[in-house]
Amino acid sequence: MAKRVYLFNEGSRDDRELLGGKGANLCEMTSLGLPVPYGFVVTTSTCREYFQAGNVMPANLVAEYNVAMNLVENRMDSRFGDPENPLLFSVRSGAPVSMPGMMDTILNLGMNDEIAEGLAKKTNNPRFAYDSYRRFIQMYANVVMGVDGEHFGALLDEYKAAHGKKTDTEMTATDWQAIIISYKSLVTFPQDPHEQLKGAIEAVFRSWNTPRAIFYREMHNIPENMGTAVCVQAMVFGNFGETSGSGVAFTRNPSTGEAAFFGEFLANAAGEDVVAGVRTPEPISALEERMPEVYSELYQTQKLLESHYRDMQDLEFTVQDGKFYMLQTRHGKRTGRASIKIAVDMVREGLIDEKDALLRVAPEHVESFLHPMVDPTQKKNIVATGLPASPGGATGHVVFSADEAVDVAASGKPAILVRRETTPEDIHGMKVAEGILTELGGMTSHAAVVARGMGVCAITGCGSLTLNYKEGVVTTDDGHQIQRMDLITLDGSTGEVMLGDIPKTEASSSDDFMTLLTWADKYRRLKVRANAETPEDASKAREMGAEGIGLCRTEHMFFQEDRIDFMRGMILASGRKEKQHFLDQLFHFQKEDILALFEVMQGFPVNIRLLDPPLHEFLPHDRAEIEGLAARLKKSPAEIHESLQHLSEVNPMLGFRGCRLSIVHPEITEMQVKAITSAAIDAKLAGMKPLPEIMIPLVINVREIRYITKIIETAALEIIQDRGVSVPYKVGTMMETPRACLGADRLASSVEFMSFGTNDLTQMTYGFSRDDVAKFIPEYLEKKIVETDPFVSLDQRSVSRLIKTAIEDSSAAVKGIKYGVCGEHGGDPVSVRIFHDLGLDYVSCSPYRVPVAKIAAAQASVSS
Amino acid sequence: MAKRVYLFNEGSRDDRELLGGKGANLCEMTSLGLPVPYGFVVTTSTCREYFQAGNVMPANLVAEYNVAMNLVENRMDSRFGDPENPLLFSVRSGAPVSMPGMMDTILNLGMNDEIAEGLAKKTNNPRFAYDSYRRFIQMYANVVMGVDGEHFGALLDEYKAAHGKKTDTEMTATDWQAIIISYKSLVTFPQDPHEQLKGAIEAVFRSWNTPRAIFYREMHNIPENMGTAVCVQAMVFGNFGETSGSGVAFTRNPSTGEAAFFGEFLANAAGEDVVAGVRTPEPISALEERMPEVYSELYQTQKLLESHYRDMQDLEFTVQDGKFYMLQTRHGKRTGRASIKIAVDMVREGLIDEKDALLRVAPEHVESFLHPMVDPTQKKNIVATGLPASPGGATGHVVFSADEAVDVAASGKPAILVRRETTPEDIHGMKVAEGILTELGGMTSHAAVVARGMGVCAITGCGSLTLNYKEGVVTTDDGHQIQRMDLITLDGSTGEVMLGDIPKTEASSSDDFMTLLTWADKYRRLKVRANAETPEDASKAREMGAEGIGLCRTEHMFFQEDRIDFMRGMILASGRKEKQHFLDQLFHFQKEDILALFEVMQGFPVNIRLLDPPLHEFLPHDRAEIEGLAARLKKSPAEIHESLQHLSEVNPMLGFRGCRLSIVHPEITEMQVKAITSAAIDAKLAGMKPLPEIMIPLVINVREIRYITKIIETAALEIIQDRGVSVPYKVGTMMETPRACLGADRLASSVEFMSFGTNDLTQMTYGFSRDDVAKFIPEYLEKKIVETDPFVSLDQRSVSRLIKTAIEDSSAAVKGIKYGVCGEHGGDPVSVRIFHDLGLDYVSCSPYRVPVAKIAAAQASVSS
Repeated sequence: MAKRVYLFNEGSRDDRELLGGKGANLCEMTSLGLPVPYGFVVTTSTCREYFQAGNVMPANLVAEYNVAMNLVENRMDSRFGDPENPLLFSVRSGAPVSMPGMMDTILNLGMNDEIAEGLAKKTNNPRFAYDSYRRFIQMYANVVMGVDGEHFGALLDEYKAAHGKKTDTEMTATDWQAIIISYKSLVTFPQDPHEQLKGAIEAVFRSWNTPRAIFYREMHNIPENMGTAVCVQAMVFGNFGETSGSGVAFTRNPSTGEAAFFGEFLANAAGEDVVAGVRTPEPISALEERMPEVYSELYQTQKLLESHYRDMQDLEFTVQDGKFYMLQTRHGKRTGRASIKIAVDMVREGLIDEKDALLRVAPEHVESFLHPMVDPTQKKNIVATGLPASPGGATGHVVFSADEAVDVAASGKPAILVRRETTPEDIHGMKVAEGILTELGGMTSHAAVVARGMGVCAITGCGSLTLNYKEGVVTTDDGHQIQRMDLITLDGSTGEVMLGDIPKTEASSSDDFMTLLTWADKYRRLKVRANAETPEDASKAREMGAEGIGLCRTEHMFFQEDRIDFMRGMILASGRKEKQHFLDQLFHFQKEDILALFEVMQGFPVNIRLLDPPLHEFLPHDRAEIEGLAARLKKSPAEIHESLQHLSEVNPMLGFRGCRLSIVHPEITEMQVKAITSAAIDAKLAGMKPLPEIMIPLVINVREIRYITKIIETAALEIIQDRGVSVPYKVGTMMETPRACLGADRLASSVEFMSFGTNDLTQMTYGFSRDDVAKFIPEYLEKKIVETDPFVSLDQRSVSRLIKTAIEDSSAAVKGIKYGVCGEHGGDPVSVRIFHDLGLDYVSCSPYRVPVAKIAAAQASVSS
Repeated sequence: MAKRVYLFNEGSRDDRELLGGKGANLCEMTSLGLPVPYGFVVTTSTCREYFQAGNVMPANLVAEYNVAMNLVENRMDSRFGDPENPLLFSVRSGAPVSMPGMMDTILNLGMNDEIAEGLAKKTNNPRFAYDSYRRFIQMYANVVMGVDGEHFGALLDEYKAAHGKKTDTEMTATDWQAIIISYKSLVTFPQDPHEQLKGAIEAVFRSWNTPRAIFYREMHNIPENMGTAVCVQAMVFGNFGETSGSGVAFTRNPSTGEAAFFGEFLANAAGEDVVAGVRTPEPISALEERMPEVYSELYQTQKLLESHYRDMQDLEFTVQDGKFYMLQTRHGKRTGRASIKIAVDMVREGLIDEKDALLRVAPEHVESFLHPMVDPTQKKNIVATGLPASPGGATGHVVFSADEAVDVAASGKPAILVRRETTPEDIHGMKVAEGILTELGGMTSHAAVVARGMGVCAITGCGSLTLNYKEGVVTTDDGHQIQRMDLITLDGSTGEVMLGDIPKTEASSSDDFMTLLTWADKYRRLKVRANAETPEDASKAREMGAEGIGLCRTEHMFFQEDRIDFMRGMILASGRKEKQHFLDQLFHFQKEDILALFEVMQGFPVNIRLLDPPLHEFLPHDRAEIEGLAARLKKSPAEIHESLQHLSEVNPMLGFRGCRLSIVHPEITEMQVKAITSAAIDAKLAGMKPLPEIMIPLVINVREIRYITKIIETAALEIIQDRGVSVPYKVGTMMETPRACLGADRLASSVEFMSFGTNDLTQMTYGFSRDDVAKFIPEYLEKKIVETDPFVSLDQRSVSRLIKTAIEDSSAAVKGIKYGVCGEHGGDPVSVRIFHDLGLDYVSCSPYRVPVAKIAAAQASVSS
């Protein structure tokens, strides 16, 4: 029979699988010679035995851990179950992989009526003893016996009300004794400490199978049969008097990253009190003054731990009667800025290498260098929560239309644009707004995509809002009314909508940040491009380090005010000649726009997607606008209405768009290709190196590609022959429909590149409209039907399977195809990892996410 | 070296692969001892040699076929290239698989100036000789040399205009000689007959690679490297005088199927003339009178051929100078009714067995027994063509709303309902209309699905129509105006819209039809269920032989006038209590409706789908209706407007529908399950055998199924315990999203059945909205981007691959799951074959398509 129980000096951090993460760590500290309260670990394999036997404890287990306990008693110089000199335990679960949803800690295990009395005597602190006891009862009843904690809370509230007590601190030893009596009338728990321990160990085992834990394992592909270990550790107390106390400390400053020891100490207090914030702790320097020797021991310990673990550590310690104990060490949480500073500093200090440094940073941490962030320490009046669609924080005055936003911005005030949803017609308002808030739409809705592209903070799908444009008021589900021009703050990183102006941290780059990006460039395999249409976006993309444009949505160029009427005229044209007139105008704009992109992107590829949206998106819908347009185009409003009716669609996302437009209206494609070719020739003649890639969207089969490629080749050749200058260009396809992925072997022979449009692919694979998903996705997340919004992180079960199939089938058919991604997932770190593993050549994302993607790509490289 | 040239007596019908279909057939007839004009076949492997050599003829080929030609000359007693006694050839392509798009026939090959003159002399018919020659020039120039036939047409028209000739028959020998001169000025073709033959053979080879032929092979998975054979056959002439002639005949009547020899004969005429209809042929009995011996030979031949080929034959023959020649025999085309009569008769006659008989019938032929059909022999004034959405023919007066249809029908007149699209609110009008015509919508749009379910003729997606409801007029693209109450005829089997009343054949069953269905039931493996909601539909389904209900769309039950307001009240309810009030009412209706289905479907399973459409579909959109509803519900119109706004969606097909409703509104599911359980208990108590199956729609993952199954189980248990009667029910899922199919292994453990909803699966796999696809699918079909509408026949590359993956993955995980299909593809013969091959357990389709599906299923069984 394998050994089931390990003392803390019998294991090390390499034993995670057997002893769990927590157990292995306690062993590691013990073997480093640190003063850890002694204890033992029941192994994960014992847990598996327990399940295999049908939830029955192995016969010898109690005997085995009793041997270990004896050694703990000796070392701690006290006895489990001895009222004179009681040894108490904390009992915790500890799986090999950190896993929320499992058992909470039980403290003070081993108490009963007699021992509480003994402890009161021994410590000469009855209040402490009975408070500890009642806490134990509540924890044990709740965690082991499954009694709802609310019942205990209710009894306590009742007692307080009857005795005029307001806070726990007003409760005396006698009060707690009364509470213990009432608690005991509610629940019968074992008085025998050995029974308690056995019950607690079983409860930890069983907590492996709570629905929440099962769900978590399912989502993270953690094997079901791994099991959890149980850590049983002697209690020490920081509330034994003035030479006792508890504290927490960080080996470096977790907010700034500064390499200076940092912490807090609370004299005569238990660890829980420091966390609960009952009293205000003193800075760690107070310990230096009170107990210089203890401080020195702590200081040496933190030095040792940081260099041992080669990362900033978050420590918990307790001083009992002048004796220093280490309770826990773990990698410390830190702000984005701190994480980068610490990682770069540690490389300089020779503690870690560049690859380690890259893995130490959460790619999202980069955001604090690029956007102002809502200060997490501020008090916030949160009135609604939506989807965190575009990161950063913003404060401004509420406006309800793009035009209003322009007016408010022009008057020098910040505006927050609040809409049910946004459309391309709102772009001018979105550009000047500090932040955007919409009732509808998911993480890849128009508002979300455009805001991310502009680096503007946005919250979408905030379904608890009811907008009344006419009266200029937003009502939240719980009745708050926000009037036009009220000041609100958005946190686009969390989705929180707050009243008033909440302070924000400034965005600013740093040398450390730039250093880290240099390292990322050094190690990553995936190229990172940006999605951009305007010269400004393209410049921002270059500034952020983009290696080309992965998606230029040509339609965005037509929505600008000086050209939208030409587009509309083309759509509404009644004859070939009228149509050609407008196409000629559009050609001119398109060519200039693309030339500008070539200028910015010198030597980097520019991927230009052919017109994608359904044509009705370009037409006005509003009566006044229709009449205005009719007058300008010299048509009757009735004609425009008829066209609108003819073009309208029930499900535009699955409608007459993408390459379907090129098949039915080849003249538009022809114009676009001529504009691209002309721009490339102009660029070449001006000494630049244009690298256009022409992308055919929404393909379902190879015949579409062949048909359109013929149009492209003919149009390009015409311009090339006309001007007598040749330019290279590539033709490829956007992989957006499941059918394209499932038939990629057929497409392979007709494309030079395939760029996965993961937004549409996710829409179609899930049957989730990006515009409507906010209606149910919050409930899906809450009810744990899905763990993450599939528009945020690529689904690994279906969408990535389609991409994998497409790459395998097409590369088996034809070698040398370039594979990219241009959906919003291209900037999501989790997805970037998947794309790396799938063997893609590049990802493309919003300019502001380029650094995020680069770091994620580097992490994928160095860790795979 | 393999033999490259086969004489007609050297092969048989088993040599299709080497000699092509046409060649093998000519050999077969020759070896039967029939008087076939002699000739030879150049093999398909020679064609492959030609391609392998880079389109170069094998060195010895000419020598080889010259040997064969010599034998042909001997047998035909004439010489190729001899002006005195010329042998002429027809040259045709003949691939192993019948394939449109390849080379047409060249007749009279071997003519030149000198031979034309010789022929004129020999036949004493210069007009015949020069007409034959000019035809040959045109065919050769067009087919071999690629000169557009239009140029010749233009020259001929010019000549006729200049000389006052109106028809070809007015042209004299001299005229044709003039034409020959002008043709020769246009094109220089080889005068040497041997050169001609070589050129023709090469042209046949090359025609294997025309774009149309490549496209066809691609669509039908015909190997690219198969190649084509070339048939070179001596010409015989039926226009040599009164003892000559040509005819076509059928071994049985192709219209009625009657077992009587049937045909037409044209004395002193070439085969082309019979086909071209220049003169009216006489019935075949005329031949008996004129040339009793020839007739007797023909009669014996047809007897022989029918019993040899064991199928009704379509013959072409020529009599030259009293000598009978067989030119071709092939399986004869026949009407649906004839095909069934012939098949059943032939089994009775012992010619074929039951399995053969099943394979002889096109499943679509069944339609003529179920619906009146537009008589194909009538003259039709076709003004528009849409999608053939529901078969049959109908004539009626044009109306533009459901209410109008009801009025017209009430007055005893037939109505054709013309709408842009239909919605559930139009059902009452659709029920009374003779036919339905819509501007929008594809083959699975609301109009199409409902019409097929009712067996009403319908045409959808007729995009060339412009409707003006207000003025009550439809305008076609070419300017026809159809006014309200005008009489039009629809052919739902072809999609043609015609002016006036076109006569139709009556629908009526027959003993033969019933016999065939009995055989189908005997041999098929796939079960066939029907999609039905009402007792009437269910009864029709049973009458058609359905073995259960495969899809009951519960929402249809809520659209009826007496219950829609309860549904609306439930949706608009402002509190839990109000909502429950309406749910209680709906429970009552739902229960009665389902009980009625159990009554009809005794002992057969009834698959009931939980509520599927987005809730906004139930609300009125019209101002007057909203106000009416507001009054009835005692709410303000503003409230209803607000709800409408809140519920509205951009892409409802990908929105808040299907099981998403059950997750967010469990109370609706609860009500539905209680109604199903109560109905089942009532049915059981009444001595019936209810077999309910509860189907969860639009699933994306197993957690949805688990969550909803818990709701189902709880609700069912409540009713079962309450009433103290237990009833069985199954729970399963509709497989409609690509994600469900790609994650089927996970779903497997939580379902008892999976029913593939191929409409939605096709929508999402293609990104084709069924409501909008008519905007571009006609152009896709015309430009050969797709060969068939994927909503009609299941796509074998993607959708069936998803189904295959789902079945493989789920059955590997869990045994015993039942697999079905309930999309519209369930009634499509081509798709049924795929479903059989995929190993499904059943298909479900509209009641009227049940017999079609049964025959298709039987065909799949007996041929696999």
